[in-house]
Amino acid sequence: MMWIRSVLVLFTSLALAQETRPPVISPEVQPDRRVTFRLSAPSASKVTVTGEFARGSQDMQKDAAGVWSITVGPLEPEIYHYNFGVDGLRIIDPGNARVKTGSTPSTLASILEVPAPSASFYDGQPVPHGDVRLHWYPSKTTGSLRRLAVYTPPGYDQGASTRYPVLYLLHGANADDMAWTNLGRANLILDNLLAAHKSKPFIVVMPFGYGVPPGETNNTQMFGKDLIDDVIPFIQSRYRAYSDREHRALVGLSMGGGQALTIGLERLDLFSYVGGFSSGLRPADFAQTFANVVKKPDEVNAKLKLLWVGCGREDGAFAASQKFSEFLKANNVKHTFRETSGAHTWMVWRRYLNEVAPQLF
Amino acid sequence: MMWIRSVLVLFTSLALAQETRPPVISPEVQPDRRVTFRLSAPSASKVTVTGEFARGSQDMQKDAAGVWSITVGPLEPEIYHYNFGVDGLRIIDPGNARVKTGSTPSTLASILEVPAPSASFYDGQPVPHGDVRLHWYPSKTTGSLRRLAVYTPPGYDQGASTRYPVLYLLHGANADDMAWTNLGRANLILDNLLAAHKSKPFIVVMPFGYGVPPGETNNTQMFGKDLIDDVIPFIQSRYRAYSDREHRALVGLSMGGGQALTIGLERLDLFSYVGGFSSGLRPADFAQTFANVVKKPDEVNAKLKLLWVGCGREDGAFAASQKFSEFLKANNVKHTFRETSGAHTWMVWRRYLNEVAPQLF
Repeated sequence: MMWIRSVLVLFTSLALAQETRPPVISPEVQPDRRVTFRLSAPSASKVTVTGEFARGSQDMQKDAAGVWSITVGPLEPEIYHYNFGVDGLRIIDPGNARVKTGSTPSTLASILEVPAPSASFYDGQPVPHGDVRLHWYPSKTTGSLRRLAVYTPPGYDQGASTRYPVLYLLHGANADDMAWTNLGRANLILDNLLAAHKSKPFIVVMPFGYGVPPGETNNTQMFGKDLIDDVIPFIQSRYRAYSDREHRALVGLSMGGGQALTIGLERLDLFSYVGGFSSGLRPADFAQTFANVVKKPDEVNAKLKLLWVGCGREDGAFAASQKFSEFLKANNVKHTFRETSGAHTWMVWRRYLNEVAPQLF
Repeated sequence: MMWIRSVLVLFTSLALAQETRPPVISPEVQPDRRVTFRLSAPSASKVTVTGEFARGSQDMQKDAAGVWSITVGPLEPEIYHYNFGVDGLRIIDPGNARVKTGSTPSTLASILEVPAPSASFYDGQPVPHGDVRLHWYPSKTTGSLRRLAVYTPPGYDQGASTRYPVLYLLHGANADDMAWTNLGRANLILDNLLAAHKSKPFIVVMPFGYGVPPGETNNTQMFGKDLIDDVIPFIQSRYRAYSDREHRALVGLSMGGGQALTIGLERLDLFSYVGGFSSGLRPADFAQTFANVVKKPDEVNAKLKLLWVGCGREDGAFAASQKFSEFLKANNVKHTFRETSGAHTWMVWRRYLNEVAPQLF
C-alpha cells in the first residue's frame, strides 16, 4: 500500500496535464445527416476512417492545426460502427464516448448514431419498458462464475402469477452477454413491438456464448452444455418461465446462429422455435452436424413451430446460409429462408429480431 | 435501404482485410506480477504508457518489427486504468478488450487487472450473488428516457415479503449508471460482505448523475430533482424498499460525493446516512450550500446516523474534503473524516465502499 501511495501522488492533476491539445468534436452529426469525423494528430502522415456507412476506408484531410477530418453522407438514419486508422494503427475515435466493446479487442469500435426524423423501431420511446437483469451464476460446465443478461417484459414484477415463454438469444464471435442490449437494443425493440401489440410478452435470456476461451475449438459443445445444464436450470429456478418445449425458442447471430441451429435442432425436446441470423455454418459439416435432423424430417417438421434462417446478400456468411437452406430443402425440412439486403452487421440483426419476435410463441 | 445495401457489399471481408499486422498481446500479466504492454505502431516516433500503477507517463521501446513495449512492476494486485500516447495522441490499448467507458470521451481508458494470490474483496467468489437490474424510466425532470442500475442482494426474489433499506450510490464526472458495477464492482463487494456477515442486506440504486448535459451548470440541482422526484418514486413503486428516512442512505464519489453531501444534508427528511468519497466540493461555497446544516447542528446530529467524508491524501480533491471536515467541526456537526492513502481512483472508491457498507442500516 505504501508503494501504491507513493506513485499515485497527484495522479489526477497529471492526468489532466496530459491532455495538451484542445478536444475536437467527433463525430458531429449535422441536421442534413452529413457526419464529420475529426482527430487531432499533428504528427500523423495518414489518417483514415473505416465504417459501416461506406465501403472501404476513406482518407481524412489535415488542417493547419493538425486536426484531420472528413465529412460523409448524408447517411441513412442508423447505428453504425467505425474506426480510425492512424498510420496503419486501428483505433477507436478518442473523441467519442460511445464504444462497442466485447470479449476480444478485435471488436472495439466507435458508435455513430444518425437519428431518424421520427423514432426508429430500436429507439427508446414513451411506452412501457421492460428491464434487463444481470445475473452472476456459477457454471458447473466451465467451473467459473459467469454472467448472463435477462430481459423481462413490462409488468413482469407486477403479474405475480403470470408465466412467460423464453427466448434464448445468442451473440456472435468476439461479443458478450451485453451485446444484444448495448448494440442490438433487444430490450427497446421488444418494448416497442409489445406496445404496438405486434408480439407476445416473453423473457429473453442472453448468455455469454463462449464455453471455452475465444478462438479455441469445441466451443459449440461446451457452450451448449453450459446452456442446457447451467443456464436453463438457473432461469427455471429464478423466473416464472414455462418449462415446456412449446414455450422455448433458441435464436442467435453469426457464431450464435451456428450455435442456435446446431444445438436447437439437436434438442427439439427443449426448443420448438429455432433461428439463425447470418449464421456461422460450415457446409462441409452439414451432413454430420444435422444427421439426426435429416433422418426423420417428418418428426422435425411436426415439432418445429418455426425454423428461421436469414442472411444479408452482402454478408460473407451468405453462401453458407443459402447452402443450409438448400440442404434443408433437399431433406424436406420445412423452414423460412429470409434473404435480405445488408452485410454482417448489427443493422441487419436488429431488423431480424424485429421481424422474428412477432413470430414467436 | 438500396443505398445502404450497395455500400455494405462484403463489409465483413473488408474489415478483416484491414488488420494487416499480426496482433500483439497486451497487457500481459506475468506470474511475478510484472506487466508488459505492447503496441504495434512502426510509423510512430514516440509511444508512452500512462497508468494508475505509476506516476506520469513512461516511454515504451520499439523493436525491429515496429512493436513498442515496456515491462513494469511487479505491481500490487489491483485493477488499474491506463492509456497509450502515440506521438501525443491519447488512445486506449487496441489489444485489450476491457475498456473503461462512461458519458464523455475523456474517461476512456483500458483496464489492467493484476490478480491477487487469493481472491480480493472485489472479486467474484463462490458465494451467493445478487443481481444488477437495469431500468429505463421516464424522467419528468429531464423530459427524457433515462437508465438506472439497481443491485438487489441475494435472495431478493425469494423473500416475497421482506423489505430492504436502500443505498443511493452516485458516480463521478464523466461516468455513468454502470460505473459502480463495471468499475466499482459494487455488486461483488456487497456479495462478499454479506457472505462474511459484515453488512446487512440492502438495495443499491445507481442512477445516472447528470441532470443536464456534462459540463453545463446547475447539474446538482437538476440531478437532485431527478433523484427525488423521479428516481426515488420509481424505486418505491418497483421494489420492496422501506420508505422512511431511517432506511435510506445517499453516498457518492467525486462529483457524486458533492451531490450526496449537498442533497443529502439538505434533505434529512429523506436520508439518515450520507457519505462523500473524494468529493467534488468548493470550500468557497460551504457557508451558502450548507447554511441550513450549520444553522441547527443539534438537529442534524440527532438525525444523522452517519456522515462519512473520506479522501486520499494524494487526491487533488483532498484539501476540499479536509476543509469540509474542518467546516463541519467548527460548526459542531458530527462526522467521520477518513484520511487514507490513494489518489482520485476507483482503487480508493472500491475500498471506501467496502468500509462504509458495513456501517449502513
